[in-house]
Amino acid sequence: MSGKKVSIVGSGNWGSAIAKIIGANVVNLKEFDNEVKMYVYEELVDGKKLTEIINTTHENVKYLPGHKLPENVVAVPDLVNAACDADFLVFVVPHQFVEGICKSLVGKIKSSAVGLSLIKGFEKKEGGGIELISSVIKRNLNIDVCVLMGANIASEVASGKFCETTIGCVDKKNAELLHKLIETDYFRVKVVQDVNTVELCGALKNIVAPAAGFIDGLGYGENTKAAIIRIGLMEMINFIDYFYPKSKVTTYFESCGIADLITTCYGGRNRRLAEQFVITGKSFDELEKELLNGQKLQGPITAEEVNYMLENKQLETKFPLFTAVNRISKKMIKPEELITFIKSHPAVQFFTKKSLKP
Amino acid sequence: MSGKKVSIVGSGNWGSAIAKIIGANVVNLKEFDNEVKMYVYEELVDGKKLTEIINTTHENVKYLPGHKLPENVVAVPDLVNAACDADFLVFVVPHQFVEGICKSLVGKIKSSAVGLSLIKGFEKKEGGGIELISSVIKRNLNIDVCVLMGANIASEVASGKFCETTIGCVDKKNAELLHKLIETDYFRVKVVQDVNTVELCGALKNIVAPAAGFIDGLGYGENTKAAIIRIGLMEMINFIDYFYPKSKVTTYFESCGIADLITTCYGGRNRRLAEQFVITGKSFDELEKELLNGQKLQGPITAEEVNYMLENKQLETKFPLFTAVNRISKKMIKPEELITFIKSHPAVQFFTKKSLKP
Repeated sequence: MSGKKVSIVGSGNWGSAIAKIIGANVVNLKEFDNEVKMYVYEELVDGKKLTEIINTTHENVKYLPGHKLPENVVAVPDLVNAACDADFLVFVVPHQFVEGICKSLVGKIKSSAVGLSLIKGFEKKEGGGIELISSVIKRNLNIDVCVLMGANIASEVASGKFCETTIGCVDKKNAELLHKLIETDYFRVKVVQDVNTVELCGALKNIVAPAAGFIDGLGYGENTKAAIIRIGLMEMINFIDYFYPKSKVTTYFESCGIADLITTCYGGRNRRLAEQFVITGKSFDELEKELLNGQKLQGPITAEEVNYMLENKQLETKFPLFTAVNRISKKMIKPEELITFIKSHPAVQFFTKKSLKP
Repeated sequence: MSGKKVSIVGSGNWGSAIAKIIGANVVNLKEFDNEVKMYVYEELVDGKKLTEIINTTHENVKYLPGHKLPENVVAVPDLVNAACDADFLVFVVPHQFVEGICKSLVGKIKSSAVGLSLIKGFEKKEGGGIELISSVIKRNLNIDVCVLMGANIASEVASGKFCETTIGCVDKKNAELLHKLIETDYFRVKVVQDVNTVELCGALKNIVAPAAGFIDGLGYGENTKAAIIRIGLMEMINFIDYFYPKSKVTTYFESCGIADLITTCYGGRNRRLAEQFVITGKSFDELEKELLNGQKLQGPITAEEVNYMLENKQLETKFPLFTAVNRISKKMIKPEELITFIKSHPAVQFFTKKSLKP
């Protein structure tokens, strides 16, 4: 029996960190092939091709500098070549690129392949709706797609600092394989079946993070920030309850729920840039270019995608925090108005009652 | 009809901050008498009596410097005199002093008085159990006791920074009165009936906070800290489920639940001193004396109280974080072992399933 082949589609900060884990794990697991292909969008770094740098120095000097990748992780600049013979396809690219990547892979991958999406965000649908990223992958490639989300700032994972993550996967055999593929002594995996909720938490928390950053930029303290995080979580839960009504309340207590929300609101790039947004008065586009070294910001675009549906369904007033983050990001209102939005809305007091069914 | 009289038993950091709110509110509420008595443990500050300083400068220069109290808040050095004619007794002293204070008040207060406890902690019972502080007050004084807990670092509340709080109160009429007494434009109150859970969250979060501080002191990042907070919350929920089985899962989503836990693990004094505990190697007793200016630390003593029961019931291994915090605080094990305790225990993976009933 030959081992399952794993390919990683994406090689940013998070893609490289997970490649480090997967690369180290497969060599100890008989269930998997030893080589891990990683699709790397080719770019020049100091005049040299990034794939060549990775394959010779075993370091993604652009997106995860300072961390060695295992030598069995092979950077491949051609997407189809990287993905065509994979049994497990790990998707980890900025969410705005997913549709295009999937289109390029149609008819080029194994029909039995299983996807694992680490991507946070939505795709807008015509007619005022939104689609989950796992669903975009499924729709294009007709494969089963699991998800992995958690309190996982990439550089800290790469440094081997203890943390947890959540995999959403219904199929038991795949759950077991993915658990083995991802878990390490310092990176603890819990698999749950509530796949949509896991993914939705991962995406929606990126709308709460800018709110936390605005609060930091405005100089409020820990109480206000905790209130914002709590209210943000309530809106996440209400949103999921309303649009994906089969979610389980236990999922919010997993790493993908409260823990990821906390990490993101204290250590993430959405928080950091939102703080700078208030302090400097610059736009998110400018700040992304100046401060993210080619990485993409997920928060404001996710707020816009969610708002696209909320506005269409006349639900903006039910989600004052989500709505305020979208309007502040677009400079339609001032950051200071975030508190006004939340104060004046009954949601602060009575959201939970309506939305959670204990 | 004369208004209800409110007395505040305690005048520390949090007692003074809540006195500021209550004092400002009562003058606008026909339901309440305009004078608010505040029991102040008499001590000398620069040779002057603290009660006299408060009653002339309207500032608690020792415990809440820089904030003016309303002039209708009157500092009273005699406990019985402060409390004897109150219809609402707000208890806000370090939890180690509650039993003594209550004993002094037996037979000296109105039998119709209602208590509101802002106190976090437990009292050890003979035979290996623990008792809630609200229950200590009830047992001694035979009055109804409500509780108030939330993401409320005192100095930030005193500065008027937006936050939320949770009151646990069963009686509807008292709930309405307490809501009016406490809520302001910036300090939002939600009343729930799940009184025990509100109080238990307030007390137990003080065991998680030192764990967060140890992690900070050891130089772990945001992922690890979020994992610690999540695991701490799971132990809080399991503890409450086991010993007080009627709790509602919705209560954990209130300010007294996740929000207070977050605030405490980022901005509270238990976190700060636990960080210093690791960095300096000093004991909590030494650090309390050096850094807290007469304030009392709640975390290590709460860990000890809870451990007293867990050990007695042979449940220590089911609560690895609570147990590790107690042992680290007593210098029985090193702070580094916190991660080992958590890693090696199945609770990280399977706690939720057993403990939460969705």
